[in-house]
Amino acid sequence: MDLNLDLVDELRAALPHEGVLTDPDLLRSYEHDEADLVPFGTPAVVVRPKTTGQVAAVLRAASRYKVPVIPQGARSGLAGGANAIDGAIVLSLIGMNEIIDIDPLNRIAVVQPGVVNAQLRRAVAEQGLYYPPDPGSWELSTIGGNVSTDAGGMCCVKYGVTSDHVIGLEVVLASGEVLHCGRRTAKGVAGYDLTSLFVGSEGTLGVITEITVKLRPAPEPALTLVAVFNTFAAAGAAVSAIATSDLQPSLLEVIDRVALSAIEAYRPMDLPTTSAALLIASVDSGTRAPDDLALISTMCHDAGAADVFVATDAAEADALLTARRLAHPALERFAAQLFPQGGGVMVDDVAVPRTRLVELIEGIERIATEHGIVVATVGHAGDGNLHPIIVIDRSDPVSMAQGQKVFDAIMSLCLSLGGTSTGEHGVGLLKRDWLAREIGPTGLKAHRSIKAALDPDNILNPGKVF
Amino acid sequence: MDLNLDLVDELRAALPHEGVLTDPDLLRSYEHDEADLVPFGTPAVVVRPKTTGQVAAVLRAASRYKVPVIPQGARSGLAGGANAIDGAIVLSLIGMNEIIDIDPLNRIAVVQPGVVNAQLRRAVAEQGLYYPPDPGSWELSTIGGNVSTDAGGMCCVKYGVTSDHVIGLEVVLASGEVLHCGRRTAKGVAGYDLTSLFVGSEGTLGVITEITVKLRPAPEPALTLVAVFNTFAAAGAAVSAIATSDLQPSLLEVIDRVALSAIEAYRPMDLPTTSAALLIASVDSGTRAPDDLALISTMCHDAGAADVFVATDAAEADALLTARRLAHPALERFAAQLFPQGGGVMVDDVAVPRTRLVELIEGIERIATEHGIVVATVGHAGDGNLHPIIVIDRSDPVSMAQGQKVFDAIMSLCLSLGGTSTGEHGVGLLKRDWLAREIGPTGLKAHRSIKAALDPDNILNPGKVF
Repeated sequence: MDLNLDLVDELRAALPHEGVLTDPDLLRSYEHDEADLVPFGTPAVVVRPKTTGQVAAVLRAASRYKVPVIPQGARSGLAGGANAIDGAIVLSLIGMNEIIDIDPLNRIAVVQPGVVNAQLRRAVAEQGLYYPPDPGSWELSTIGGNVSTDAGGMCCVKYGVTSDHVIGLEVVLASGEVLHCGRRTAKGVAGYDLTSLFVGSEGTLGVITEITVKLRPAPEPALTLVAVFNTFAAAGAAVSAIATSDLQPSLLEVIDRVALSAIEAYRPMDLPTTSAALLIASVDSGTRAPDDLALISTMCHDAGAADVFVATDAAEADALLTARRLAHPALERFAAQLFPQGGGVMVDDVAVPRTRLVELIEGIERIATEHGIVVATVGHAGDGNLHPIIVIDRSDPVSMAQGQKVFDAIMSLCLSLGGTSTGEHGVGLLKRDWLAREIGPTGLKAHRSIKAALDPDNILNPGKVF
Repeated sequence: MDLNLDLVDELRAALPHEGVLTDPDLLRSYEHDEADLVPFGTPAVVVRPKTTGQVAAVLRAASRYKVPVIPQGARSGLAGGANAIDGAIVLSLIGMNEIIDIDPLNRIAVVQPGVVNAQLRRAVAEQGLYYPPDPGSWELSTIGGNVSTDAGGMCCVKYGVTSDHVIGLEVVLASGEVLHCGRRTAKGVAGYDLTSLFVGSEGTLGVITEITVKLRPAPEPALTLVAVFNTFAAAGAAVSAIATSDLQPSLLEVIDRVALSAIEAYRPMDLPTTSAALLIASVDSGTRAPDDLALISTMCHDAGAADVFVATDAAEADALLTARRLAHPALERFAAQLFPQGGGVMVDDVAVPRTRLVELIEGIERIATEHGIVVATVGHAGDGNLHPIIVIDRSDPVSMAQGQKVFDAIMSLCLSLGGTSTGEHGVGLLKRDWLAREIGPTGLKAHRSIKAALDPDNILNPGKVF
């Protein structure tokens, strides 16, 4: 793709020298996120603005030349939402990484989009506050990326996802105009909820340059247990029982046998790799926590748990959660060892009503068996949100085709159970066809009309989501 | 306004006989909501559909004839959002009042828009569940109206407003197409958050015909106290201390002296009418509730409370909340007695960050004094959300002008404190000019482009919000 030199000149005039990259070697590292098996291109130029004004200048130039703009954070996404297309401007927000304000009394924080999730969590924790959304990528992913995909995490079963915590945004529109939406107050209904419209819009409606989030008081210390099951479905039944009870676990995660083995191989920690599934549950209900944990333990036993262990301390509980978070890299390693020629994984992300979890689990196992494909499943079971991770051999067209069939069959199953094909990772490129299927022609038309209203020349992350 | 007979014929063909009203006496009762001093017109026809298909037929006909459609619920709104305009079709959703599903395990309910808030609350309570949003009008107002205005209430300080509980919608678009958005799962990010876009859009983007809400387990029994203050600002200081602490009151309401007197006159119940302000606080934190209430009591004393009483039982607490809910009718009566020629009230609805509450309270008192106007203030103080109720004499142009000045001055003050001019009642006609001021030209342009995208002929509640 030819470089538009006039455009690059304009970008150089608007940004500091180090903020405009055209070196092909550098450009290549901005091509894609962590999604495997999703197409991507090579950008013509990468810009790294430091201010909202610079973002606005980039968008004005892009609008004038009608060049696509791909907003990017840490590129840790799992749906290809931040993948470049040939000749585009990649707009990396990673340099806008300041925490602008933490207001402990009104319990809000204002941050730039490049602030890393863990950086915000630690900064507010120092003031006795809590920013709950905790995607697996939290040490790496940015708040801007979390907001753009409406990221979830382990805390969501009790505390909600990213969109439940964003109350205001500054957004640069395709035209370069700067829009402020939302508020700093606990309540407010002044006009359409544009804030929620931009959250989860994956960079297709505007570039988010400032984010106001609500914070909570620090939670009370959590107590954690691990239950070991001889069938994955039994673990699912325990989750359904817990999630539909009046208890409010602060975490309710599952890891199946394949994932357990891969994690143990990746980082040995004496996980019970012979069990069919592990359920990790935490409660942070203060003085009531021991009783709540005992009730959860009983529900696990009633659902057929072979064993239940209570974590002796926070360090042991943290080790378990760390294990859970390693599922993705561990399974990538597992795939590479299983298929040295080209092992890879397709990470799925589906959600069903909590009462349908067992049906989803049994269906995933049946689909994997039928297609002769290894599928490891981990997930935020308490939300009905699972991540089946499909292990494939990219060098083998048969394996690839079977993997795609499994991917599609799991999502069909999920929709038939009243679920959604997209739980918390975003639509990106990976789920684009599924979105169309899920929201139907009227939904698609509504999406397109809103996109056209805010980005009439379709320069913002074109081709993503729908 | 002439009646378009072709249009009426089409409506009669699409709806049952009793669903199309053209009798002028009947039409008059559909002209306006509860907002005082806001303009309204007379509709040409009122339709009362029973099904989504009938709503779609009405909108197809309205689109073809380019006749405005004003969706209405119980007309209990306080911003003129449901006011008719001359010659329009009023689309009353009051007849679509079925609770379609209550799913206790997944904790969701699916309802038609005409279901009354209290009807839903009682139905889910029978299954041990809780639908928190509780606007003052809850015995009267509909879920459709609550959703359209993103109504708040007393529970919001702990449990959030209507938008925090709506997870899916069926909406008939201006074209008559039926859109389904949202989900029945705990999580889901499949596409733009159209659900949140329609919530609070006051009937300007589509007609909501089905609503899926999340439910919570029934809360634990609440303990309640009343603190009596010699200045309103001291009550505000107590609220700020409580709301910025780690306590989570389930209710935190204030009533000032004028409102107290009006309520006591309206329904005598031995309220302490000589005190400057009453603060009502509840906690529903289970075993911890007595300790939490004691802490709140201490904070009230520290802020200068003259006295603190703990409610002896739920009946006494309910009586206090009933008193609080009577503020609006009591002040209407008070106004009528003060100005027999034409007493009336302008109900304002402003919200500030919790830490600015005392400044707002002192400012309201100063503004009222400066303009020689009686202002009674009640509100959801824990959210920083107050309702200054401005008492005016409609028969006196000077009183009307002063009232308007007070109304405007309070909102200016509110914006200068980092607040919003619209807390929970919606924008409607009452706050239209203020919305434009608050969101600025870029915000207004974004609103207009979205409105045009979804309702290109501007037939849906035109002239409202912006």
